[in-house]
Amino acid sequence: MNSFGQKLRFSTFGESHGTALGCILDGVPAGLKIDEEYIQSELDRRKPGKSEFETARKEADKVEILSGTFEGLSTGTPIAMVIYNTNQKSKDYSNIKDVFRPGHADFTYFHKYGIRDYRGGGRSSARETAARVAAGAIAKLMLKTLDIEIFSGICEVAGIKSEDFNYPHAKNSIIYALDKNKEEAQKEAILEAKNNHDSVGGVSRVLIIGTPIGLGQPLYYKLDGVLADAMMGINAVKAVEIGDGVLSASALGSANNDEIRQNGFESNHAGGILGGISNGEDIVMNVYFKPTPSIFKEQHTINTQNEELDFALKGRHDPCVAIRGTVVCESMAALVIADMILLNMGSNMDGIKKYYK
Amino acid sequence: MNSFGQKLRFSTFGESHGTALGCILDGVPAGLKIDEEYIQSELDRRKPGKSEFETARKEADKVEILSGTFEGLSTGTPIAMVIYNTNQKSKDYSNIKDVFRPGHADFTYFHKYGIRDYRGGGRSSARETAARVAAGAIAKLMLKTLDIEIFSGICEVAGIKSEDFNYPHAKNSIIYALDKNKEEAQKEAILEAKNNHDSVGGVSRVLIIGTPIGLGQPLYYKLDGVLADAMMGINAVKAVEIGDGVLSASALGSANNDEIRQNGFESNHAGGILGGISNGEDIVMNVYFKPTPSIFKEQHTINTQNEELDFALKGRHDPCVAIRGTVVCESMAALVIADMILLNMGSNMDGIKKYYK
Amino acid sequence: MNSFGQKLRFSTFGESHGTALGCILDGVPAGLKIDEEYIQSELDRRKPGKSEFETARKEADKVEILSGTFEGLSTGTPIAMVIYNTNQKSKDYSNIKDVFRPGHADFTYFHKYGIRDYRGGGRSSARETAARVAAGAIAKLMLKTLDIEIFSGICEVAGIKSEDFNYPHAKNSIIYALDKNKEEAQKEAILEAKNNHDSVGGVSRVLIIGTPIGLGQPLYYKLDGVLADAMMGINAVKAVEIGDGVLSASALGSANNDEIRQNGFESNHAGGILGGISNGEDIVMNVYFKPTPSIFKEQHTINTQNEELDFALKGRHDPCVAIRGTVVCESMAALVIADMILLNMGSNMDGIKKYYK
Amino acid sequence: MNSFGQKLRFSTFGESHGTALGCILDGVPAGLKIDEEYIQSELDRRKPGKSEFETARKEADKVEILSGTFEGLSTGTPIAMVIYNTNQKSKDYSNIKDVFRPGHADFTYFHKYGIRDYRGGGRSSARETAARVAAGAIAKLMLKTLDIEIFSGICEVAGIKSEDFNYPHAKNSIIYALDKNKEEAQKEAILEAKNNHDSVGGVSRVLIIGTPIGLGQPLYYKLDGVLADAMMGINAVKAVEIGDGVLSASALGSANNDEIRQNGFESNHAGGILGGISNGEDIVMNVYFKPTPSIFKEQHTINTQNEELDFALKGRHDPCVAIRGTVVCESMAALVIADMILLNMGSNMDGIKKYYK
Repeated sequence: MNSFGQKLRFSTFGESHGTALGCILDGVPAGLKIDEEYIQSELDRRKPGKSEFETARKEADKVEILSGTFEGLSTGTPIAMVIYNTNQKSKDYSNIKDVFRPGHADFTYFHKYGIRDYRGGGRSSARETAARVAAGAIAKLMLKTLDIEIFSGICEVAGIKSEDFNYPHAKNSIIYALDKNKEEAQKEAILEAKNNHDSVGGVSRVLIIGTPIGLGQPLYYKLDGVLADAMMGINAVKAVEIGDGVLSASALGSANNDEIRQNGFESNHAGGILGGISNGEDIVMNVYFKPTPSIFKEQHTINTQNEELDFALKGRHDPCVAIRGTVVCESMAALVIADMILLNMGSNMDGIKKYYK
Repeated sequence: MNSFGQKLRFSTFGESHGTALGCILDGVPAGLKIDEEYIQSELDRRKPGKSEFETARKEADKVEILSGTFEGLSTGTPIAMVIYNTNQKSKDYSNIKDVFRPGHADFTYFHKYGIRDYRGGGRSSARETAARVAAGAIAKLMLKTLDIEIFSGICEVAGIKSEDFNYPHAKNSIIYALDKNKEEAQKEAILEAKNNHDSVGGVSRVLIIGTPIGLGQPLYYKLDGVLADAMMGINAVKAVEIGDGVLSASALGSANNDEIRQNGFESNHAGGILGGISNGEDIVMNVYFKPTPSIFKEQHTINTQNEELDFALKGRHDPCVAIRGTVVCESMAALVIADMILLNMGSNMDGIKKYYK
Repeated sequence: MNSFGQKLRFSTFGESHGTALGCILDGVPAGLKIDEEYIQSELDRRKPGKSEFETARKEADKVEILSGTFEGLSTGTPIAMVIYNTNQKSKDYSNIKDVFRPGHADFTYFHKYGIRDYRGGGRSSARETAARVAAGAIAKLMLKTLDIEIFSGICEVAGIKSEDFNYPHAKNSIIYALDKNKEEAQKEAILEAKNNHDSVGGVSRVLIIGTPIGLGQPLYYKLDGVLADAMMGINAVKAVEIGDGVLSASALGSANNDEIRQNGFESNHAGGILGGISNGEDIVMNVYFKPTPSIFKEQHTINTQNEELDFALKGRHDPCVAIRGTVVCESMAALVIADMILLNMGSNMDGIKKYYK
Repeated sequence: MNSFGQKLRFSTFGESHGTALGCILDGVPAGLKIDEEYIQSELDRRKPGKSEFETARKEADKVEILSGTFEGLSTGTPIAMVIYNTNQKSKDYSNIKDVFRPGHADFTYFHKYGIRDYRGGGRSSARETAARVAAGAIAKLMLKTLDIEIFSGICEVAGIKSEDFNYPHAKNSIIYALDKNKEEAQKEAILEAKNNHDSVGGVSRVLIIGTPIGLGQPLYYKLDGVLADAMMGINAVKAVEIGDGVLSASALGSANNDEIRQNGFESNHAGGILGGISNGEDIVMNVYFKPTPSIFKEQHTINTQNEELDFALKGRHDPCVAIRGTVVCESMAALVIADMILLNMGSNMDGIKKYYK
């Protein structure tokens, strides 16, 4: 099951060291200006090799559109996009051919499928998320026409928490840091782990502004539920919270409720979602990434013959996957919101009559 | 969208103060013994009015099976179950007819649909979760035949955290407390909030044992992603974590990776899921519930005419929704795992040939 | 898989001789007036026992709405409807407990599921179609607000073809005959077969008027494809044609093309659908029903122990299932069109902006 | 909605004169030998320009696999395939830029989407079916491992009907004719129409052998219903019948029922499907194609400004789309059967226990 979304539905393909990866984005409304430079610029934000805080693998991540547009506009037909892999060093992986890397999906893929493309993790590699970013860029273009925008940044690295959420700063930070006063410490933590042949975890914070009231299809395609699925499904994510999230579980009802006045809510503990439906406030999420499982320290593991061995990984890896991951969070959020925009149409007869008459 | 699951799919209906609520559970394999007493016993665990820690609304929550079984066995056809409402006091809600209760879905439903069944929150009431428990009970029966079991309990109330996870104790605790040494303090916190016309949040911990390796359909129907959706979609849930979850984001890779030996993993930081697929270890999740939004303190709000008012709720409400919510978490987990059991069949040709030949 | 539709989705449950049958209709827009008398009147058109041309089984087919409406209007939440069985004579079926009736699904259900509710065919009985008619009635109510209407009638019985398609006549005909000049001959053919302990086939013709241009979601949820699925899925249907259908395969392109003028198409060989999308003309379909497999003549068959026997059925059966089947065709058509109305919203950016701004 | 299937799901993209077309086939079980030569040979059967009975457009239709295989085997991940367009003559279409060709989808696409890629019909062109054949070839490879095979041929052209169904002959016939005694007359009818600047319709007959009993997911993913959708969704198809189909509607029950003996059914009027489930007999379908709407005679039409004009098409077109269409019928049938093979697993507890234990 390699598709996501109901009315705006994308399907991805591709492995880390295969010929190409890409996606089909189905359900894009006709008449949307498809700004290819913008799509590429989004891919550039996620692409590897931009700094010492990322893997050294260099990929141009040049996206090509194969279908679905005509004279610069979407036609309502599926938009296929492809990104050819160029910088595979599959030889780096010959030593893991029969070995299950701890913290990776090698073990589970092998047992589920009985066969495994071990080169760079194959399909389970975060390289696949390039396709999500390409699809997400088109979702963002669609949302912009409705004045909906999505931002994100890193609010925690290795336990060093942001106290400020400065999204414009994050956009230009090499580690997408939200708090410029914490940025240096966060960078140091990453480099220290890297130098120790280790890795660190981090947290991405996502902000969605401008959503109309009413997005979300209760009770089993709720906005928060689907966002949780979308975020948890990103490689290395282990927790998701909406609004106050974890903290709300230790709060009193009187403190946690967002009281309402004529001009809106007096607070936003709920993170913009009530009963699974957007309430018009900012939607806020935190997405928790575990540390990159690829480390260069020796670890216990087994191979496909169930023999024990001590194993130290080689190759090129991100010391903190949350950094590039935050771009993927934005993209997935955009895809969810755009899908919900489409699904929400037809919720009531007034809207239907207005549309058809 | 009131359905959940792919091959084992349930669809629920019903409002808090309507005639009845219930569900259709579709995709139950034929030949499963449908133990109606067991299903009722699961509903009894969730039903309200059992103690001072719960709402005083008394509902028998007697479930009737309308279809899908024959001579005590499932037939492979849809199992419909219905629970008639008996203890509605809709008059309790006449004062909220035009008022949006803070923290509730009143505001969002009204704006999305243009009409709202205000009685007890209508469809957005947690009363609907009775149907999930009925469906979940059948999923549990199916899982038991494969030696898969699901447990849960409350691991935190009002910030008071469990240090022990004693699932058998939780099963018999009136507040489903996992740590008997914390239980009294947790109870007191609930009653204190209740006496103050307030409410508290809490955390449910879910444990799934016996899952085979290989459950989960990457990349967009991953086991962790779907569990996150299933849990986040439960009323009042604001965060979900798998395994070490939030904590893993501040860990080092060398500490967070679960090393592997011939007899299995040496630790379980991952919570039993790698790359979205079960790895055969225990699956562990924490589910964070906000405090019940229904409180008896006066709060600022507006009505459907956008007039401001100060409002204090009446009626009968749970002071801590996490308690009964933990049964719902179990049920949803069971439904997800059973669905994944079915979906996983056909992952590779060897399994298919074995099945058909 | 007991659900149909994408945005307007219904799920049915129930067996011929079980406690009840019914459905959940999900995705009905809020604010639709739910006319219960109309729904019942549609069920009355399909219900058995109205004449000698139908089975003698008497069922009130009284429908109850359990959820999804408030003060007479839909609320956007699932509408559950239930019909209790009242006139089962399950004893009639004790003799088929272990026998596979020729032409029935007994054989296939037994082998697929390993268990079979033999009473009246269980789930495979056309009795389930009562639930479709209930759901279809609500779809029709929705379509009426958009001036879309659906008619049908019998255009062939036992090879006796209509030369006139008089839908108002059909509505009042006891066999729903479209051609009053053929009606008597068609009736005689039915009674003759019945008296011979045999049965006859027939053809239903469905007409949909008032559809806007643009319904249908190519390339794999085309309007004609989905209608074909919907019709072929009705019990006893063996062929479906759109517009000229079978005949068009022997026509020349110059004769079969519908030329276009300012005020519309000059002919309607296409039956209102081009490229899987409605073109604004009348949608016309023919649905071919095989003769009722339940006959009282002796036939060769086997039992569950694979023993051969000669077998003559007992019980009460329709001599021509097409007759009551035509009401089901209408209902399924209504459900398809209403679904397509909802799905079509969001096809282009202009419509989306108009909706949201 | 450009995807088809539930567990084996394919999604296509591409326009007649765009850069490329292709598909993602998701859900292929791991461990299947992916014979690329076979896939290409299937595409070669459908590709245009092979004879005077087909369009003169020459396309190599060379398929490239971009993902989902490793060392010649499927890995359980999505298989993406792409076919680059090479022989577009888009200039041929400049004269239809603003004109709606009668019998084509130009009119409906324009009104639905507000924009139209007019070059060769864009997405609505039958050129897209190349992607179906590529996906279908993999489905056939999967089915072969289970001894299921699919054949087809042309059983009628321009009203000239086959009296013999010789599938091996059809495979080698340039017009895929089933009856070699009718083949010449059928060829002449095609050429005569072609010479008259006209076109003819035809009928494809599809035969599926070796299916196990039990395929089909009643009541709303029935084998016959889904086949009907799959066939009706092929360009130019206007009718579908299973088994005796249309004829069964004029038969008596006693003649139409297939009686059963220990070694199987005594006849196969049902075409191998009872109650929407395969009964182990051959599955037989007829698929009716209208004549190609692209003809070179002058016809009445309008343009996008709603001006009337007389219009004669230019370009290169098949005089009888049924011919190459029959390969597409086979492919779609293979995809449906393979999907049903996967879906059927898990129908009963015995099968599940056998699979997991």
